[in-house]
Amino acid sequence: MAEEKLPTRAEDFSEWYNQLVLKAQLADYAPVRGCMIVRPYGWALWENIQAALDQRFKATGHQNVAFPLLIPKSFIEKEKHHVEGFSPELAVVTIGGGEELAEPLILRPTSETIIGHMWSKWIQSYRDLPVLMNQWNSVIRWELRTKLFLRTLEFYWQEGHTAHATRQEAVEETLQMLNVYTDFAVNEAAIPVIPGVKSDAEKFAGADTTYSLEAMMGDQKALQFCTSHFLGQNFAQAFEVKYLDQTGVLQHCWTTSWGLSTRVIGAIIMVHGDDQGLIMPPRIAPIQVVIVPIYKTDEEKASVQKTAKELKAQLIKANLRVHLDEREGFSPGWKFNDWEMRGVPVRVELGPKDVAKQAAMLSRRDRPGREGKVSASLAELPATIEKLLVEIHQSLFDKALAFRRANTRETATYDELKKAVEEGFAFAPWCGSGDCEAKIKEETRATMRCIPIDQTAVLGKEVRTGGACVYCGKPAKDRAIFGRAY
Amino acid sequence: MAEEKLPTRAEDFSEWYNQLVLKAQLADYAPVRGCMIVRPYGWALWENIQAALDQRFKATGHQNVAFPLLIPKSFIEKEKHHVEGFSPELAVVTIGGGEELAEPLILRPTSETIIGHMWSKWIQSYRDLPVLMNQWNSVIRWELRTKLFLRTLEFYWQEGHTAHATRQEAVEETLQMLNVYTDFAVNEAAIPVIPGVKSDAEKFAGADTTYSLEAMMGDQKALQFCTSHFLGQNFAQAFEVKYLDQTGVLQHCWTTSWGLSTRVIGAIIMVHGDDQGLIMPPRIAPIQVVIVPIYKTDEEKASVQKTAKELKAQLIKANLRVHLDEREGFSPGWKFNDWEMRGVPVRVELGPKDVAKQAAMLSRRDRPGREGKVSASLAELPATIEKLLVEIHQSLFDKALAFRRANTRETATYDELKKAVEEGFAFAPWCGSGDCEAKIKEETRATMRCIPIDQTAVLGKEVRTGGACVYCGKPAKDRAIFGRAY
Repeated sequence: MAEEKLPTRAEDFSEWYNQLVLKAQLADYAPVRGCMIVRPYGWALWENIQAALDQRFKATGHQNVAFPLLIPKSFIEKEKHHVEGFSPELAVVTIGGGEELAEPLILRPTSETIIGHMWSKWIQSYRDLPVLMNQWNSVIRWELRTKLFLRTLEFYWQEGHTAHATRQEAVEETLQMLNVYTDFAVNEAAIPVIPGVKSDAEKFAGADTTYSLEAMMGDQKALQFCTSHFLGQNFAQAFEVKYLDQTGVLQHCWTTSWGLSTRVIGAIIMVHGDDQGLIMPPRIAPIQVVIVPIYKTDEEKASVQKTAKELKAQLIKANLRVHLDEREGFSPGWKFNDWEMRGVPVRVELGPKDVAKQAAMLSRRDRPGREGKVSASLAELPATIEKLLVEIHQSLFDKALAFRRANTRETATYDELKKAVEEGFAFAPWCGSGDCEAKIKEETRATMRCIPIDQTAVLGKEVRTGGACVYCGKPAKDRAIFGRAY
Repeated sequence: MAEEKLPTRAEDFSEWYNQLVLKAQLADYAPVRGCMIVRPYGWALWENIQAALDQRFKATGHQNVAFPLLIPKSFIEKEKHHVEGFSPELAVVTIGGGEELAEPLILRPTSETIIGHMWSKWIQSYRDLPVLMNQWNSVIRWELRTKLFLRTLEFYWQEGHTAHATRQEAVEETLQMLNVYTDFAVNEAAIPVIPGVKSDAEKFAGADTTYSLEAMMGDQKALQFCTSHFLGQNFAQAFEVKYLDQTGVLQHCWTTSWGLSTRVIGAIIMVHGDDQGLIMPPRIAPIQVVIVPIYKTDEEKASVQKTAKELKAQLIKANLRVHLDEREGFSPGWKFNDWEMRGVPVRVELGPKDVAKQAAMLSRRDRPGREGKVSASLAELPATIEKLLVEIHQSLFDKALAFRRANTRETATYDELKKAVEEGFAFAPWCGSGDCEAKIKEETRATMRCIPIDQTAVLGKEVRTGGACVYCGKPAKDRAIFGRAY
């Protein structure tokens, strides 16, 4: 209920988040520890995210498929790094149809193994390559510390899997999908991201190289937005995924995988949200425009409601996602607060005077008070709102980018790094050694988020190259982002 | 590979089906017994089915959600009929994160129980009703005899769940969704269906009344296309789903559930397919039009390919799902067979003479040989194809309806019924007793499919009412459909 106030983000960011997810009815806790129920408002956001990504996947030649949930336990043991990474997180089915199973089955934590197994049957020749697949599903990882959307035992995602004839083609695919995700983050979610390479300690279990997008949340902590893995021939060797090349020689395939999950809903909440609640990025907002009718007398009500319904039809026709709030027994002010909490980008306030003038007052969710108000004639409302949504998108993105840059410091010394990670990201020279990385993590709770591919884009300016590792003082090639992370 | 011939349907319908599913690359067997992999061509069909249904669900006010896969085992035991029905089919997780679980978790066989549990928290007053939800997911039932798409251990479906203040509203919802499914079957899948009521023996475990759509396959056997259940207050009582009514009295809700699964892909194959392979119903076909270029010399190739690409772009612009077959090393004749096997409704044959005449030859998949060929000018191709797709849809539906009616017999005696179920459906007076139903099943392997709601629509003519039960001779109110079923 909108009457109970959220804690402010400054008071308790974590509680602000937890309460907001429940209050906005994005999700709820399931009876099984660590599982969540995604409620209609949350799922509608996920469906918009899915649509935005799915069209990009299809435009780049990928086809959707469905591999099963149940995987023989022995599969996970075939790739040595994979088994080390995933064994502690497995859920195991031991009973089926009332009988103990001869071989226990695991619930997929990810599908490289079963896909590798099937590819070994389907792929014979270079003519069968590349294989470009994606699937939308849920996976199970037995997480101990969970938080709605950010880390749950079951989560929803897409996992792309591709097989190629050459190393180069697979590397290009890995980077292409990282670019697709970047395009989505920037142009749909309005979230600035840092594309980069993960360290060996942080990479996917079984990958040669893991790329990720890293974003800064409203509490200056880092969140891994998604990942794209170059898997080399690791899974192809473990599952004997081979093809006859054009000269008749049998070769192992080169494979990739890449995924983005319901975690990004957590990112959207934490990047854009304010003390009033959510701010939905307009292009994927479940509701882009809410119309709140204002009236006192029955006569006013009849006239306002009639115009409100016409307006709604007009906005639907313009392909806007619009909701008309006709709830009885709630004041306009209460409804304003409620929709602000739910983050609807544009509110249309429509009273008898507006109807008389054939105009309405528009309020931008991202600009509180007078500053975010615009009056517009009803005839021009669809065009005005479309323009406003573009502006809101850009403004959310700009604000988040400015925030990230303001809270990212170039650090040359370990003392500077320690201070920087208290307040955001440290952008520091690093020698590349896992030992230094481990020590930094142990001493500061900050992890190596990534080595940014475009070092200049992080702060929007040239950064120093070379220099000495912030921890050990040995020569450092690139700068890496360090930060405390979700 | 298209070279290996399918068995004919007359030779071995079951083998024709199994081989066709593999050969058309709709699905494949997974390493875990009874599970399947839905391959790109099969999943594209499912996505079109999903889109067609999802827009109908949303148009009738339903919202999508996601409830978790894992359910505490104790939940399933709260509704007595439900536990009896589902206990033998459960998959049980006993180990999570390396530890034995205190309470075993089941993989959802369906979600009434966990949804009931959450509704008891979310629903307080009549203002919260109706609750109209749907989810797209997969469920697990430990089936012993499996067949791709028709009965698998894991299958994909949607499950709708609604809660209402009154019995009448819940009954209306149950029937509304049966109508939505009928609309989908007739207008998207081109499959004639018989909407009706299931017997107590065949109804959903926990339902007061189960409605279904029944269809006749190409081997005259019955297939339950989908179901819609009026659950009364059974789950509301088991999970204490209550609301305060307008007079301040606490009442149990009335609930419904309804589902349609990847089984309908099996129905599409078995209703429309012929000895050459699949015939996809045009409105949900993954590929509606395939263009096969025909050439001999390099010069011809260049000219034909150029026109073929322009044509493809023109058809995409007309919102048609089109594929241009540019594979090298396969003859046009081989490609014709391959796409016939995959059931693409319209084939465009484009050779140098066609390009010269600015025309192309169209072939209808549903009419073999000369009869299904039409020549059309390239300029008019999109319009011609759109018209053709409408005709093909209608023709597939008409043919399937005529087939069902030709193989459904009004039977007044048990001998007639026994003969009728050898060749299709028996439409017979039945007293309503479970004993008669059980005996008929035991002696003829035919089950009571449904009591058709519209008795006239079954054969397209008035049928006798009343009469004596085909088994026991006692008075019968309605006629029921009996048949051997998948």
